[in-house]
Amino acid sequence: MTNQNASQPPEHLSPEEFRRHGYALIDWIADYWQRVEELPVMSQIQPGAIRELLPPSAPEHGEPFERLIEDLDAIVMPGVSHWQSPSWFAYFPANSSPPSVLAELVSAGLGVQGMLWSTSPAATEIESHVLDWLIDLLDLPESWRTTEQGGGVLQMSASDSTHTALVVARHQAANLGIRPESMVAYASTQTHSSIQKGATVAGYGHVRLIDVDDQQAMRIDALEAALDEDRAGGLTPIFVAATIGTTGTTGVDPLRAIGEVCRKEKLWLHVDAAYAGTAMLCPEFRHHQDGLELADSYTFNPHKWMMVNFDCSVFYVADRAPLIECLSILPPYLKNEASESGAVIDYRDWHVPLGRRFRALKLWWVIRSYGAEGLRSMVRYHVELADQLAARLEADSRFELVAPHPFALVCFRCTESDEATNRLADAVNESGKVYWTASELDGRPMIRVSVGQSRTEQRHLDALWSLIDELA
Amino acid sequence: MTNQNASQPPEHLSPEEFRRHGYALIDWIADYWQRVEELPVMSQIQPGAIRELLPPSAPEHGEPFERLIEDLDAIVMPGVSHWQSPSWFAYFPANSSPPSVLAELVSAGLGVQGMLWSTSPAATEIESHVLDWLIDLLDLPESWRTTEQGGGVLQMSASDSTHTALVVARHQAANLGIRPESMVAYASTQTHSSIQKGATVAGYGHVRLIDVDDQQAMRIDALEAALDEDRAGGLTPIFVAATIGTTGTTGVDPLRAIGEVCRKEKLWLHVDAAYAGTAMLCPEFRHHQDGLELADSYTFNPHKWMMVNFDCSVFYVADRAPLIECLSILPPYLKNEASESGAVIDYRDWHVPLGRRFRALKLWWVIRSYGAEGLRSMVRYHVELADQLAARLEADSRFELVAPHPFALVCFRCTESDEATNRLADAVNESGKVYWTASELDGRPMIRVSVGQSRTEQRHLDALWSLIDELA
Repeated sequence: MTNQNASQPPEHLSPEEFRRHGYALIDWIADYWQRVEELPVMSQIQPGAIRELLPPSAPEHGEPFERLIEDLDAIVMPGVSHWQSPSWFAYFPANSSPPSVLAELVSAGLGVQGMLWSTSPAATEIESHVLDWLIDLLDLPESWRTTEQGGGVLQMSASDSTHTALVVARHQAANLGIRPESMVAYASTQTHSSIQKGATVAGYGHVRLIDVDDQQAMRIDALEAALDEDRAGGLTPIFVAATIGTTGTTGVDPLRAIGEVCRKEKLWLHVDAAYAGTAMLCPEFRHHQDGLELADSYTFNPHKWMMVNFDCSVFYVADRAPLIECLSILPPYLKNEASESGAVIDYRDWHVPLGRRFRALKLWWVIRSYGAEGLRSMVRYHVELADQLAARLEADSRFELVAPHPFALVCFRCTESDEATNRLADAVNESGKVYWTASELDGRPMIRVSVGQSRTEQRHLDALWSLIDELA
Repeated sequence: MTNQNASQPPEHLSPEEFRRHGYALIDWIADYWQRVEELPVMSQIQPGAIRELLPPSAPEHGEPFERLIEDLDAIVMPGVSHWQSPSWFAYFPANSSPPSVLAELVSAGLGVQGMLWSTSPAATEIESHVLDWLIDLLDLPESWRTTEQGGGVLQMSASDSTHTALVVARHQAANLGIRPESMVAYASTQTHSSIQKGATVAGYGHVRLIDVDDQQAMRIDALEAALDEDRAGGLTPIFVAATIGTTGTTGVDPLRAIGEVCRKEKLWLHVDAAYAGTAMLCPEFRHHQDGLELADSYTFNPHKWMMVNFDCSVFYVADRAPLIECLSILPPYLKNEASESGAVIDYRDWHVPLGRRFRALKLWWVIRSYGAEGLRSMVRYHVELADQLAARLEADSRFELVAPHPFALVCFRCTESDEATNRLADAVNESGKVYWTASELDGRPMIRVSVGQSRTEQRHLDALWSLIDELA
C-alpha cells in the first residue's frame, strides 16, 4: 500500500546542512555580483534551450542539495539576463543590493503572513512606519501619512497599484449609478501600458490617450477637449493618470494643471512616478511633483531605482476610507480583537491579494543601510552620468537627443537615418557588452539609455560611449 | 550646496561584509527554526508597540549593518506571530522550508525581472516546466500543459488567480454584449472571501452564495435554482467557483456535477484548491478532484502546505488564448524578436502585474529537494495526525466534530454550550503554547485545528490534546 511512509514527518535539511549550503549560496551571490560585469548582459540562448536541460518529470526521490547548487551554474545561468550588470542600460533598472537581499532572506526565513495586523504586528507596523518615513524623504503630502487620513501600502508592482486606484474610482462612480461601460480613463500617449491594461482589467469602457507636447508632457488643452467631447458623446470621465517620468522618455505631465482640472471636474487623479519617484529624494527634482497634493493616489517603485529588490511597489492614497470600503470583506475565520478595536491597519483591505509577505523589512534595511544621504548621492551620481552621456551625444553631429532628460534616461537617435538608428541599436546589443532598449517615438526608432543600475560607474559609461562611437 | 556627494557612486556593503553578515543571518535563521518552538506562538504586543520603538524619521547617515541585525531581536521579534512554529494550528499553514528559503535568497541575489521571456529566459522556462511537472504530480488534465492548449503561471496569491479568472470570464461575456452590472458569479456560502472580493474588484454586478449540504458541499439543486431565478430576473450567470477544501471546514464541492451544469449553461468554471491542491500529490485524495477536466481555470497554493514560502500561487487555465487576448498589451519598449516569433511565453500577459521575480526557483528546489515521495509522505503524515486528533475528539463526550475532515483540518465544538467553545478557544490561544482559529459555522462558534506546519510532529499534537483536555 502506498501509505508506508505515512507515519514519518518530512525530512528537512538539518540545521548544519542549511548553514553549510546557506554559506555556499551567500558566497555564490557575492561572487556573482563581482563577476556579473564580465558576462554577456543578455542571455544568448534560443527558446526552449533551458527546458531541454530539464528532466521530463519531477524526481521521485529527493536530490542532494549540492546538485541543485551545481545546476545554478549549469542550467540557470545561461538563461539569465543580467539586470544586476553595471552595463544594464535597458528598460528601467530593477536593482538588487546587499541589505535588500539579506532582508529578503530573513523575511523568507521568518515566513510570516501579514494579512492582518494580528498575524504579525511587526510586518504591518514597520510597513506603515517606513512608508510614513518616505513622506518626509520624498516630500509627499502630509495628509498621506497612515497617522493622518491617507496611508501607504506595499504592493507587488505599479501595475497592481494603478489597477487598485482604477478599481476604487470605478467603485465610487458605480455607487453613483454610473455604468462601467460609459466610464473613461485618461492618460497621455506616453503613459505606461499598465494604465491601459489596468483600465481593461477593471472594466472601464474606454481609455483615452491624450496627445503630448514637444516636452513629452500631456497637453492640458487636449485633455480638456477630450473631456468635453466625451461628455458630449454620453460618456463619463472618471479617472486621469498623470505620469512623472514616462517609460518612453521620462516625460513629466503638468501635474498641478491636471490636478486642477480633476478637482473642477471631480475626477480621480492617480500619479504614476514608478521610476522617477526615487529622484524626489533630492530637493532639486521636486518641482516635477508640484501639485501632488491634488492627487487621490500615487505609486512609485523602490524596486526600480532605490536598490530594493523586486518586488516592492509603494501605493499611497490621500484618503484610505474609500479604498477600504471597496476592498474589505470580513469572513468569520479572520475576525479578531485587534481588528475589531479599529486601532490597527489590516493591509489585506488595501489591495486585491489577501496574503502578504514581510516586504517592508527590505525597504527598512535599505533606507537604514544607505541612509537618506547615501540614497540621494546615488540618484545624483546616476543623473550626472546620464547628463554627461547626453552632452556627448549632443556635441556629436551623428546623434540627436529626441526628448528632454530630466532624470537619468537619455533617448536619442542617429541623424543619418532611421536605418542607422536601428543598426546601431542592434549592433550595440549584439556586442553582448551592454544592453539598452530599442524603442520608438512618434513612429520613428530611437534608443533608450537608462542609467541607474546600482553598480554602474563612470567607467561603464565611458565604455558605452566608446562602443557607440565605434559602432555608429 | 547639497550636491557635494554627487560624483560618488553609492557605497555598498563590500563582498566581505556581505559574506560576513550573510553567514550571520543564515545562522540566525537556523537558530530561529530551532528555538521557534519555545516562543509564544502569537505576538503578545499591543497595537502601536513596534512603531514606538522606531525613530520618527529615517536616518540621514547609513547605519552599521550589525545594528540592523540587533534590531531583528530587539524590535522585530516581539511583533512576530510564528507561522513557522510547529504549534501553529491557525488558518492554513504558510510553510517555509530550507530549500525554499535558499532559493528565495538566490532569486533576490540574481534580481532578474521575468516580465518577458527575453528578460530572463531561465525564469520563464523553469516556471513553465515545473508547472508542467505538477500536471503529473497532481494528476491534473493533460490539456493544461504549456505544451498543449492551456498552461500554468505563478501568481502572488489565490486571490490574484481567482481575480484573473473572473476578469477573463467577464471580458469574454462583455465581448458578447453582456453588461457587467447584470453578471452573476456563484460560489457556495463556504467559499473563500477572495471569490466575493475578486468579483467586486472585477466589477460583477452580483455574487450569489449557494447553500451547502451537511457535508459542507455546494448543493447542486440550489445552484440550478439560483441560475433559473437569476435568468428569470434578467441577470446573466457567468462564473461559478467550486472549491476543493473550503477555508471554513475543507468542504469539497461536487465538482463533476457543477462542471456539467457549467458546460450546459456555458458558464466559466473556476476551481479553488488553494489549500487542498497539495493533497492531490497522493492518489488516495484524487477522487475529490473528479471532474477537473471540466474546469476553465484552477488555483492552488504551494505556499500553503507544500513548503514553498509565501508567495507562490499556481494558476492554470485550460485554454490560454482568451487569457492572453484579455491581458496582452504591447508597447514599443517591450517589443523584441523572441516575443514576435511566437515561440516563447511572455508571462506578463498572464496576470495583472508586468514585472515578476524568479519565483519558480523555489518551487523547483522544493520539489527536487524533497522529491515527490517526500512531499507525499508529508501530506500523509499530517492527515494521519489530524485523523488521530479527530478520533480523540469524537471519542470524548465533551466534544463534537462539526464537519467531515477529508484532509488535515479538524473542526469541532464543545457539546456543553457555545460559551464553553468560546472559552476553550480563548483559553488555548491565551496559553501562548499553540494557536488555532476561533471561527463560526451556521452562526455558532467552532474551533478550527489546521495540522500542516512542516515541523509539526506527533508530540505537538499530543501536547495540543493535553491542553484541550486540561482546559475544556
